[in-house]
Order: sequence, then C-alpha cells, then structure tokens
Amino acid sequence: MKTIGILSPGDMGHAVGRRLAENGLRVVAALGDRSERTRRLAAQAGIEDVGDYAGLVTAADAILCILVPAEAEATAQRVADALAATGASLLYADCNAIAPQTVQRISQVITGAGSCFADASIIGGPPRPGYTPRFYASGPGAAELATLNGFGLEVVGMGERVGDASAIKMCYGALTKGQSALYTELLVAAEALGVSEALAAEFGKSQADALKRMDGLPGMPPKSRRWVGEMEEIAATFGAVGLTPKIFEGAADIYRFVGGTSLADRNPEDPGKPSLAEMIAALATSLH
Amino acid sequence: MKTIGILSPGDMGHAVGRRLAENGLRVVAALGDRSERTRRLAAQAGIEDVGDYAGLVTAADAILCILVPAEAEATAQRVADALAATGASLLYADCNAIAPQTVQRISQVITGAGSCFADASIIGGPPRPGYTPRFYASGPGAAELATLNGFGLEVVGMGERVGDASAIKMCYGALTKGQSALYTELLVAAEALGVSEALAAEFGKSQADALKRMDGLPGMPPKSRRWVGEMEEIAATFGAVGLTPKIFEGAADIYRFVGGTSLADRNPEDPGKPSLAEMIAALATSLH
Repeated sequence: MKTIGILSPGDMGHAVGRRLAENGLRVVAALGDRSERTRRLAAQAGIEDVGDYAGLVTAADAILCILVPAEAEATAQRVADALAATGASLLYADCNAIAPQTVQRISQVITGAGSCFADASIIGGPPRPGYTPRFYASGPGAAELATLNGFGLEVVGMGERVGDASAIKMCYGALTKGQSALYTELLVAAEALGVSEALAAEFGKSQADALKRMDGLPGMPPKSRRWVGEMEEIAATFGAVGLTPKIFEGAADIYRFVGGTSLADRNPEDPGKPSLAEMIAALATSLH
Repeated sequence: MKTIGILSPGDMGHAVGRRLAENGLRVVAALGDRSERTRRLAAQAGIEDVGDYAGLVTAADAILCILVPAEAEATAQRVADALAATGASLLYADCNAIAPQTVQRISQVITGAGSCFADASIIGGPPRPGYTPRFYASGPGAAELATLNGFGLEVVGMGERVGDASAIKMCYGALTKGQSALYTELLVAAEALGVSEALAAEFGKSQADALKRMDGLPGMPPKSRRWVGEMEEIAATFGAVGLTPKIFEGAADIYRFVGGTSLADRNPEDPGKPSLAEMIAALATSLH
C-alpha cells in the first residue's frame, strides 16, 4: 500500500493522516465539500486534496473511514457508488465507533462493490509525538490493514470476523464515555439539588480516585455532540445481545444536553477551557 | 435519647443497632413478623424484640428507618398509624436511599402524626470493628439525631432542609452503584460478543485502575435485588431536576437482570463467592 485515503480528516483523521505521511505514505482526501477548518487541518498534516470521491477511490490503495458514527453507513454507500462508477478496487477499513451489526451491513456494501473490507476501531486519542492509539482490526482485510504497523500506526489483529473490532470499541467506549456521562449527570444533579459542597467533601474522603477522574470532564463538551451517536451505537450493540439499552440511551441524552450548550462550541484546540466547577455550574443553569 | 428503634435489622440495620447497643443504648425492634434470619441477626446484635409497631413506638425515643427504598413510604405510614393509636411521640429518622421528593412526602406523614422528622442517609457499608459509615442528616430532627455521635455513629449535619441528606445519598449512590451497573453491562456484553479476552488485554494496558475497580463486582449480586429500587429513586431524583432518568432506569434494569439469576441467591456472609470471570460468564449465559 502506497496511497492511503482518509475519510475524513477531522480531529482524529488528520492526525492519523499526518502520522502516515510522516512515515512515507502518500495520504489523500476528498476535500471538495469540506469545511475550512477541515481543509486547514488536512493541509497542515500533509494530506493531499484529490477533490471528490471518484478522485479518492482512484488514487487510494486503501481508505480509512474515520467519521462520526451517524455518517458511517451513508459514506460507505457513496464510496461503493464511486467504486462502481470508476471500476476501482481497494481496501476499505471502517474505523468508526459503530455497532457490530452496523459494520456488518457496511461490509456487505463494500464487498458488494468488489473491494476488500476490514472492520477496524481506534482506542485512544489522536496520534501525537510520542503517542499512538491502537487500531483493532478484524475481517478479511485485517491482515492487509496490519501492514500499516510499518508506517507509524499500531494495528492489533483480531481475526476473521467482521464485528469483533467494533465490538471491543463499543465495550471500551462504554467504560470511558459511559463513566463521563455518569459523572457529569451526578455532578450536575448535586449542583441543582444544592448539595455539591457536601458531596465533594464526601468524595474527598471516600472516593478520592473518582474525584480525580472527574477532573478530566472539562475536556468533554467539545466532543459531546459526536459522542451522542457513539452512545446510541453502544445502546444498539448491547440491546442486540439482550442487555438493556437504557444506560447508553441515557448517556446519549447527557451528551445531547451538553452538546446543546455553548460549552460545546469550543474546539479542542481553543483556549479558555472551563474548570470543572465552572462547567458543572453552567450545565446546572442550562437545566429547564 | 436512651432507647433506639431499628426498622428493620437487616444487613445494615442490625449492624447499626449492634453499634448503638455496644455504646450503651437500649436498642429495640418489632420482629413479630420478620424472617428467621432477621431475628437471628437481631439477637446476635443485642437488639431487643418488642413485638409490633405499637410496642416499638411506645419503647423508642427515636426510630432509625433502614429498609429497601420501596418499603420506606408504607413503613412510615404504619409508624404514623401506631403513633396515632398509642399517643406516642418520638424522633423518626428516615435513613433510606430514596429521592428527596419521596422523603418530603414521608416527612409530612410523620410530622402530621405529631412526631419530629429527620432526613438521613447512610454512606458506606454496615459498621464493623474499626469502621463506621457516615450518616448525613438534615431537617428539623437533624441536630437531635446528631447526638448519636456520642454513641458510636458518625452523623454529619447538613442543615434544616428535608431532602438534602437524601440528595447527597442519591448522587453518591449514582457514582458507586452506577459504576457497578456500567461495568457489569459492558463486561457481560463483551463476553456475549466474544471479545472478553481482547478487552481485558486492552484494559490491562490503558485502564488498569478501572480493571481493579471491577474486581469488586462479585460482591454485588447478593445486593442486586435491593439496589433496583435505589436506582429507580436516583432516576426519579435526577428526572425531577430536568436530567435524563434513563441511565439509572438502565442501572435498575441491570440489577433486575442480575437479581433474576441464582448469583443473587447468596447472602453476603455465605461462602462461595464467584470470581469475576465466573460471575460474568454466568450472566452472559443468562441472556436470552
């Protein structure tokens, strides 16, 4: 593989593209209809604009699809249409935080268009100097995707079954983002109920490590809107095996609530991150 | 206060009663219609049986009501009826894990019967040698309840407002029991999806402290049935301030699911606690 398409270079995608470009691969993206911020991030990361999806599938040996969950299926369909229209063939790796049953449908769309499919997921934050998140990969294209281990990524193979790489992501995100939703809700509730100080004092005595974990919450609001869909995918994943979907439907509600406030208008790289107390006070004020 | 009534001496109640009896108070309970196990635990704890509710309200200077949440309101009504029938007057402290709006209704019932009311909640496990949970107390009777600080309990006053002591308990239980429900669900999902080993390996690398917290889960199933009601009270509490009730409705679903398995048939003091892996495997097998 010499040319990798990134679909699309947002916070995670541009950092992955940059890492691959720094390690000698040509990295391309279809930026014709993308936002100014996305185009700027892509240019900074050494990602080449090939215009549209036809340009992308023609240029790329492999596409890494890294999007918000709600866009994953429609995007795969657009790629399949471009593959059919151009006669191109490639490796398509869906790297999104989506339910196994969703990725299985996407697999059908891509293999139906004559290309190879890998189920993939990313655990961790965007690559940065000294840090690499882990890509999990399963399905027919997993071994080929693992060749990116030679180009600055860490790809862990999970075998032949489409769905496994997504399943581990769902369970992992359930922990990290489920916890953040839980902490946010109980802190906002305590504020609204007027017992924040007493609760903080009690946590200080008996839940000091949880209190420390809550310190990370102010980094969440800028990501809250895209986490809504991930929580819904986790709810669908857990519901499909016979567990309650409600905890993660509720987590989606929390991120929808946070995403509806101005706290979510910041970009992760913007200055002015609020303190935890400021964030919780602002959210409590936003309750109707 | 010389005589304290415990309503009723289950796991928490008998340990609280024992602590007060060891510190020189007379401790009584109405055990006429209680289970053999409750009567045995009470006798071991030095708790005197006064038969029925009339005997209880006549003997006691104060009653600590420590029950499963679903029984709190009906029990307060029975006590109010006994107060009316006997002409007795006392301090009634509702120590249950219930919503502020529930405890406000109970307060009306008790004060309507001419007795003094304290909203209270217990954070921590049953008292044992070297360990004392914290009682939070608010409302008109909070200061009087705090005299139990001289008799082996730790009572933290929160002021005059009925509901505050319950509110801190709701938010605290949301953390500890919410986390346990979240962890249980995602581990059972991983098992059902066939990715348990890969997830454990990833947690070992990037979530080692969460993995450690999960080690406590096998102690949960014997408590799961009584936690269902507490989760529903938290859902009601959070819903009343305009937050989503779904996370905790889902947590109630998880404890209902666990409570429906034979894992919940153990008592906390019984031998044979399963390992975490055994517990999760048994739960995954119980999914339909």
